[in-house]
Amino acid sequence: MKEKEFIKIISNTLKSEYIGDDCAYLKDLGIVISQDNLVEDVHFSMKFTDAYKLGYKSAMVNISDIAASGAEPKYLTIGLSLPHNIGNEFVENFYKGLKAASDQITIVGGDLTGSDKIFISITAIGLVKDRKISSRKNAKLGYKVIVSGQHGASAAGLKDLFEGKQNKFTDVHLMPEAQVNFSSSISQNINTDYAMMDTSDGLMDALLQIAEASNVMLDVDFEKIPYDKDLEKYPNYKDLILYGGEDYQLVACVPKDFEVKNSYEIGKVIEGHGVQINGEKILNAETKLYNHFKE
Amino acid sequence: MKEKEFIKIISNTLKSEYIGDDCAYLKDLGIVISQDNLVEDVHFSMKFTDAYKLGYKSAMVNISDIAASGAEPKYLTIGLSLPHNIGNEFVENFYKGLKAASDQITIVGGDLTGSDKIFISITAIGLVKDRKISSRKNAKLGYKVIVSGQHGASAAGLKDLFEGKQNKFTDVHLMPEAQVNFSSSISQNINTDYAMMDTSDGLMDALLQIAEASNVMLDVDFEKIPYDKDLEKYPNYKDLILYGGEDYQLVACVPKDFEVKNSYEIGKVIEGHGVQINGEKILNAETKLYNHFKE
Repeated sequence: MKEKEFIKIISNTLKSEYIGDDCAYLKDLGIVISQDNLVEDVHFSMKFTDAYKLGYKSAMVNISDIAASGAEPKYLTIGLSLPHNIGNEFVENFYKGLKAASDQITIVGGDLTGSDKIFISITAIGLVKDRKISSRKNAKLGYKVIVSGQHGASAAGLKDLFEGKQNKFTDVHLMPEAQVNFSSSISQNINTDYAMMDTSDGLMDALLQIAEASNVMLDVDFEKIPYDKDLEKYPNYKDLILYGGEDYQLVACVPKDFEVKNSYEIGKVIEGHGVQINGEKILNAETKLYNHFKE
Repeated sequence: MKEKEFIKIISNTLKSEYIGDDCAYLKDLGIVISQDNLVEDVHFSMKFTDAYKLGYKSAMVNISDIAASGAEPKYLTIGLSLPHNIGNEFVENFYKGLKAASDQITIVGGDLTGSDKIFISITAIGLVKDRKISSRKNAKLGYKVIVSGQHGASAAGLKDLFEGKQNKFTDVHLMPEAQVNFSSSISQNINTDYAMMDTSDGLMDALLQIAEASNVMLDVDFEKIPYDKDLEKYPNYKDLILYGGEDYQLVACVPKDFEVKNSYEIGKVIEGHGVQINGEKILNAETKLYNHFKE
């Protein structure tokens, strides 16, 4: 709740056209830019991860933002603040992880300071050249709703990490993969406006944001959402799939006849407001969505 | 000490040509980019500042990095992590301060998350168009060493803040001004290579870095360094001037006959290694330089 309130205050104070999207599209430079903060014990815990995996995920989180815009991920800068007791191996392994995640991307600088807890802020730049940039405002009536892959695994993995387990779901949580191929297969080939977001804050959050920004309803069939059948062992597995975040898949609304390889059609854009799953309108989603400012 | 060690590890791991400078120059995009982290109780304390001044300084610190490159400061992204008890006024005043500091600059996005302490990471983008970009490697024999203004005031101000005082020095510490006019008067008019840095970590640190990167000696007359004469009341005022950081002035090495309005010539580039003040070579500067990882 407070996060949305703060963003409203920021919008009112800055009166900038750019505030509100994950990436800002700087047309004069032909780039998109995004920045993400990752804070120890808020976004990750060193009890569950290690320096290499943390570096890997930190890069992927930001590459995913660029992928969501349709741009080509190109440069990263890394602002890293570390407690005094951090050793050389941490720094080496963190940067090895960063590098492993950012194969086609160049890390061009950043900052290194002290702090009490590990604090990571990464800025990513993507190139627009020959690509069409998405906007969450661009879901149009008759478009289909597609996703790049499975949901729910990361949230299940986080649950399992808290219980001391290690399995395929914890792997997804600790080392997600940004969906750059799905992104470019749309942005390099489409010639109409389209909407796209990553599902870092959950599939439902992305669906709701697109619906709100585009002033439409997204009509989704739960059965069409791809997920790992082993999730059904979890008592609340439908919530994990719809509301669990950090899968870093992409969800897009594109024209019905526009084909996207390796995509899953989960619904369509219809008249109305919000999201309905199997015909039932989603209300009070706020209480289930992940929100950093909620205790 | 540890910071330099970490940077060496990062350089070895990434093998990127961009690591080591404050700004990375992305020639394909015609921009420079820099990122700075500001951590509560490491770089600032809410005992001494307020949200507006903190926003103002956070922007200036990053604008100063761009100014040091010679580029035109153009865009900022703001990664802000805040404790749960922070109220709406903090956010509003912080962004008012940011905006006041960045008159010609557009804030284009960022991130907002929770954290234990206030954590700010700002990325700044500068335009290269029609300007010559500096490099700390470009101090050449026979060049003069010039600065944009007074040194020592900010460090004196920090001292005074700890003693509960408020005066012109504390003002300089809390609300520094990036030297964008000094920067552009060089970068828009010069047609040879030149060196420039800001003095965020102290005048001596900048001099030593330029000398080392350029493989020359900088021969400086202490008497020519401009400073507020009221600094002489402080017992160690020469150290404040040479080693005290956060004045956010610029120091540059430019050809002897290149005139820069409102600049102060403090020395010249000669053969040798390092820095000498009034003919005396500076040794063991490390112990006096500001270093986040030193307790």
